[in-house]
Amino acid sequence: MTTGKIPIAIAEGDGIGPEILNAALHVLDEAGAPLEYHKVEIGEKCYLAGEITGMAPETWETLRQTQAFLKAPITTPQGGGYKSLNVTIRATMGLFANIRPCASFHPFVQTKHPKMDVVIVRENVEDLYAGIEYRQTSQVCQSLKLISRPGSEKIIRYAFEFARSQGRKKVTCFTKDNIMKLSDGLFHKVFDEIAPEYSDIENEHWIIDIGAAKLADTPEKFDVIVMPNLYGDILSDIAAQITGSVGLGGSANIGDKGAMFEAIHGSAPKRAGQNSANPSGIILASVLMLIYLGQNAIAERIHNAWLKTIESGIHTDDIFREGISKERVGTKEFAIAVGKLLGQKPETLKPVSYPASEKLKALASHKAPSVKRTLIGSDIYIHSELPPLELQKKIATVSTPLTFKLLSNRGAKVWPGGQPETFCIDQFRARFAHKQQGQRISPDLIVETQKFLLEAGFDLIKTENLYLFEGEPGFSTNEIY
Amino acid sequence: MTTGKIPIAIAEGDGIGPEILNAALHVLDEAGAPLEYHKVEIGEKCYLAGEITGMAPETWETLRQTQAFLKAPITTPQGGGYKSLNVTIRATMGLFANIRPCASFHPFVQTKHPKMDVVIVRENVEDLYAGIEYRQTSQVCQSLKLISRPGSEKIIRYAFEFARSQGRKKVTCFTKDNIMKLSDGLFHKVFDEIAPEYSDIENEHWIIDIGAAKLADTPEKFDVIVMPNLYGDILSDIAAQITGSVGLGGSANIGDKGAMFEAIHGSAPKRAGQNSANPSGIILASVLMLIYLGQNAIAERIHNAWLKTIESGIHTDDIFREGISKERVGTKEFAIAVGKLLGQKPETLKPVSYPASEKLKALASHKAPSVKRTLIGSDIYIHSELPPLELQKKIATVSTPLTFKLLSNRGAKVWPGGQPETFCIDQFRARFAHKQQGQRISPDLIVETQKFLLEAGFDLIKTENLYLFEGEPGFSTNEIY
Repeated sequence: MTTGKIPIAIAEGDGIGPEILNAALHVLDEAGAPLEYHKVEIGEKCYLAGEITGMAPETWETLRQTQAFLKAPITTPQGGGYKSLNVTIRATMGLFANIRPCASFHPFVQTKHPKMDVVIVRENVEDLYAGIEYRQTSQVCQSLKLISRPGSEKIIRYAFEFARSQGRKKVTCFTKDNIMKLSDGLFHKVFDEIAPEYSDIENEHWIIDIGAAKLADTPEKFDVIVMPNLYGDILSDIAAQITGSVGLGGSANIGDKGAMFEAIHGSAPKRAGQNSANPSGIILASVLMLIYLGQNAIAERIHNAWLKTIESGIHTDDIFREGISKERVGTKEFAIAVGKLLGQKPETLKPVSYPASEKLKALASHKAPSVKRTLIGSDIYIHSELPPLELQKKIATVSTPLTFKLLSNRGAKVWPGGQPETFCIDQFRARFAHKQQGQRISPDLIVETQKFLLEAGFDLIKTENLYLFEGEPGFSTNEIY
Repeated sequence: MTTGKIPIAIAEGDGIGPEILNAALHVLDEAGAPLEYHKVEIGEKCYLAGEITGMAPETWETLRQTQAFLKAPITTPQGGGYKSLNVTIRATMGLFANIRPCASFHPFVQTKHPKMDVVIVRENVEDLYAGIEYRQTSQVCQSLKLISRPGSEKIIRYAFEFARSQGRKKVTCFTKDNIMKLSDGLFHKVFDEIAPEYSDIENEHWIIDIGAAKLADTPEKFDVIVMPNLYGDILSDIAAQITGSVGLGGSANIGDKGAMFEAIHGSAPKRAGQNSANPSGIILASVLMLIYLGQNAIAERIHNAWLKTIESGIHTDDIFREGISKERVGTKEFAIAVGKLLGQKPETLKPVSYPASEKLKALASHKAPSVKRTLIGSDIYIHSELPPLELQKKIATVSTPLTFKLLSNRGAKVWPGGQPETFCIDQFRARFAHKQQGQRISPDLIVETQKFLLEAGFDLIKTENLYLFEGEPGFSTNEIY
């Protein structure tokens, strides 16, 4: 790696992957991007060779020694316990930010939303995508949703930095913190803490369901939207779709120590080898990559040439429309057309401008404020097919060192003061705490309580400790603790 | 309650609630609905009087003694730990099904989707809405997502029964089971088990992100869609919005022993008392209620009169458009118009038909199949600010009765075989199991392991036991157990 060029990893992927990657590389070469390519193998071949994550372990070294990864789509074989390659790379390399520009190109690409130009900034590592799941009984499965302060800080700060670097005016946050007051509440709180540091950028928060409805109906009202992982997954697909074509979307996965760029569409195995796929997604992903690498001038040239190509009616099959399109081209010919239009700008569509700027870096999260944390009890989850009040009575007969305070089923209180209509499954939550509400307890007592319950014949599934933080309950209370 | 009429509970709610409820009652009375009303107090007044769930405890008795609950929207005061009244009623009364018809009324109500006619059937009790959350350290909050077999069976069976009773052709299931293989996987599996029992109805499954994108773009491709709670919340708001007006939507919350009917919009306090709100949402909710009560003929009369009113251009302010609308009316006048048109059917819009049928009942879920469940270990969650490999070494020095197998952070494996780029928060998962993979252990050993870790000075947060079900791991494996 001594060519003076920037080393990047590339992967051909599966299905239409090799064709569209070649198209992107042609455009990058024509534009004189100073890149040095290091090819890695990923995808179906690796899966079928027994790599359950879809890549060989030595590939990590290449990813580590290069500055970015341009990745074509892959096919994950059906069944067989394969793990998502993207999820693995994101989690392992800490690619915490997923960036998806979703713009419509009216009138050249058909859309119901001619004025939309939204960027979705999705947290990419935590939330339900940490993939931590447990089947607990024959009846119930549980997934853990984790939202952390550093995770939230990193993505929210990145959203504001990105907005500023791209001259955008507003950052919107979506959460469901009216229901998930702790987890989504934390994300919203961190947003409210960080937003004032960017006084040049407008900020707002929407409850996800209402926000999603607005986005689907009037996307032109939004600019940059930052969200936890699951909401971002759903809404970035909606936003991409309603631009009129998912075939045009590129995305960036950004971390502190690496970044991955890809088209948002899949590997379309049925269309492989036909020179008919639209390479726009991976070309626009390359534009995001060049900006990430600080090659703003080349990024701008490619993006404007691509806009000019679309505007000239040079269209692949997926977006070809009689009356609007002028020339139906294949994958390769589309890339050649973009290459030839380098240096030109669109006239109807708005040209892009990426002035030279400092490379946008992920900002270290601040040290979490120190808070006083007091252990006051534990929720012990019990497998039982007894009716709730029978189970309650049975638990009450055990003389546990902690006091039995509450029994609930799927979050609904069944004792004290439950309603007979509550439908119960075979997993119950029994809350144990100090006799006197809110008193500190020793963690041994939680272990002792489990021991007593086991000796009394209960089938314990799990525990969740209860803490006060600065005196406030760090748990959904059911009013009782 | 000896009038021979059907007793139902009604609540005026807050903001525009009293006006729109009165409008609905006027229409019900004009149509001769054999109902006897029992008024209950809910909402802002109750919250401010100190009822944290927004209703007095004695209201449960009225709800229990009546056959349905027609509820106007309420205002939940800001801040102060108030609980959602709807979530409380749904969970406590086991109202497991939320039904939301979302149709467009082109050309009378403006929409980008003139042909849509979708019914969203949302699981209403479990998933992340069980509201079980824990703050575990200064950095991290956790919400539990619970998906149960009986919960999934009930809602999926209801969706098919509803589709059949309304003459609908297809039921679509949305999940994210490519990521949440256990929880969403269970929902999808139950769907695949139940669908063949309804061979007259087409069925299909979509991954939620792609399905949501399709729904937002081409809703006319869908008929009935059944989903877990969170997805249903987001997508039912999207579907309602893109019909052209959320002001027209009614919804049903159905349980084994009760049901609640409401408009999908809020209490709009700023517009209260102005006789300007659109009462259509609660009128259409009343139609759903009449069907639930077996009063199909009256439901059909009201629904067709309402369609005729819309088609006649008699519109409230929210949907009034020059050139399309004929007469701008207030809340009360709209209801009077619907009352006068009873007996008529729409001509441009499609009339509805609700032939007399058996009352649609929630079907009891089958007994869960008995499966062999073997305890093989436990994930013990530890609070630590140490770098991952230092923590690993420190844990390894404790001679626990179970073998230390794995250390991960937010789902990403950090030992054995982690990558140095993984960004870690202060909550780690340490997996303990039998030395020999997959061997049954006694639950005492989990308690003993906790004891040893506590004695060595570790700060334990929680445990999650690991089971095999019929020999298959009931947990996200990270390949190691």
